[in-house]
Amino acid sequence: MKEIISIKNEQLKKWKKLQTKKGRLLYKEYFLEGFHLVEEAYKTKQKIKIILYTKRGQTKLLNFLNQFDDQKKVFVSDEAMKSISTLSTPPKIAATVKLEEEISLKSFFGKWLFLDNVQDPLNVGTMIRTADAAGFAGIIFGKGTVNPYQAKVLRAMQGSNFHLQIIKGNLKEWIVKFKKQKFWVYGTQVNKEAISFLNLKKMANCALIVGNEGQGVSRELLKMTDQNVYIPTFGKAESLNVSIAAGILMYQISTLQ
Amino acid sequence: MKEIISIKNEQLKKWKKLQTKKGRLLYKEYFLEGFHLVEEAYKTKQKIKIILYTKRGQTKLLNFLNQFDDQKKVFVSDEAMKSISTLSTPPKIAATVKLEEEISLKSFFGKWLFLDNVQDPLNVGTMIRTADAAGFAGIIFGKGTVNPYQAKVLRAMQGSNFHLQIIKGNLKEWIVKFKKQKFWVYGTQVNKEAISFLNLKKMANCALIVGNEGQGVSRELLKMTDQNVYIPTFGKAESLNVSIAAGILMYQISTLQ
Repeated sequence: MKEIISIKNEQLKKWKKLQTKKGRLLYKEYFLEGFHLVEEAYKTKQKIKIILYTKRGQTKLLNFLNQFDDQKKVFVSDEAMKSISTLSTPPKIAATVKLEEEISLKSFFGKWLFLDNVQDPLNVGTMIRTADAAGFAGIIFGKGTVNPYQAKVLRAMQGSNFHLQIIKGNLKEWIVKFKKQKFWVYGTQVNKEAISFLNLKKMANCALIVGNEGQGVSRELLKMTDQNVYIPTFGKAESLNVSIAAGILMYQISTLQ
Repeated sequence: MKEIISIKNEQLKKWKKLQTKKGRLLYKEYFLEGFHLVEEAYKTKQKIKIILYTKRGQTKLLNFLNQFDDQKKVFVSDEAMKSISTLSTPPKIAATVKLEEEISLKSFFGKWLFLDNVQDPLNVGTMIRTADAAGFAGIIFGKGTVNPYQAKVLRAMQGSNFHLQIIKGNLKEWIVKFKKQKFWVYGTQVNKEAISFLNLKKMANCALIVGNEGQGVSRELLKMTDQNVYIPTFGKAESLNVSIAAGILMYQISTLQ
């Protein structure tokens, strides 16, 4: 068990770098903050490299910490934790976790969410959490979509990323692959060339594509789908937030009789 | 038409104060930033007191600005706009609008959303936008719920507040009032004492109560409802974000056949 008190420690610099894409690729690790996320990572058997904890963590999470080998544990001062945390109130526990660069598809069935150029970390995180609740099998992070290992995304996913298959990839290629496997692929489109989500049919295997906050799903992808879908609006709002639209659609798909 | 160049101008101090609850109550005005919101306020006949615009606003929004009397218009320097804006990129136009302290109920019918101690500005704003899209008639901001005139809430509502009746009030009193008018009042509850949202019946007049991000709807209110409702989860996520849950429920209520 190590101890890091000084905020000038070299190790801290490394962990801080895990907040950047470059740093994550360099060290092949990412950084998790707070007990809920670290506990979910542990429960779901993610490869935890280092557990960092403060004095409060040591007192409050003793049983949890006892499950780890001493060589994995690092006691850090509050100051040191503050220096590497992205939170306004630094957590009592954090961890570095092995980044699975190439996540391969484990099971080619069920319901999938494809993210096309979705940029807001909160929107993306919330959609992954909703996908989990709706019983979806996985998510594909397409081009332009925010990185799933970014601190804000990790926080908003609340650990749901550990319950689902998470893949980064080219959506055009994945649409082709899914269609070959007889998946029904839905796009989302605001205009009425699409069909209302109320007219969806029950499908065991399907993929739903949602798109950028401003532009929606790219035209190129919309042309490749089996069916495009819209949510009617009854008031004067011009559109729905993408995470709300995705929530309504995923639950519709999951609960069709 | 006035001009404000110096950021030390007294008027700016007043507008800055409109970002606080105290300032809004003192001046009985609130502050709107950006063309979309100012335009929605104008279209929906809100009482605009002052229009502020920068050089870019003057160039890009000439036709819009021409609709206002000169005495309502104030040209401000980019610096001055920056000093009163809450945005990282200050807007080219902003406005102060009369705060309607006591918004009375205009029409006692339709579908309503009650907010019990909902604290996140983004959640609240997004729910108002969704309520608008789902054709709801109004919102009641109950105790503990974030202020509807706060900058972040105004931004997330995207002008939907101008399309709906917005009331601040005591939810216990409003539940009693609505029930007297034969409204059906739904609470939301995560546990299974409630019924699944899939078993809801079509209702022309009803109210839906959603609650605090951590605690949900208070027990006291849940006891007063006609029926409490939950959204089943099929994966491992323990719960849904409140704005997602509200979106799914409002669309279910609006689209029941």
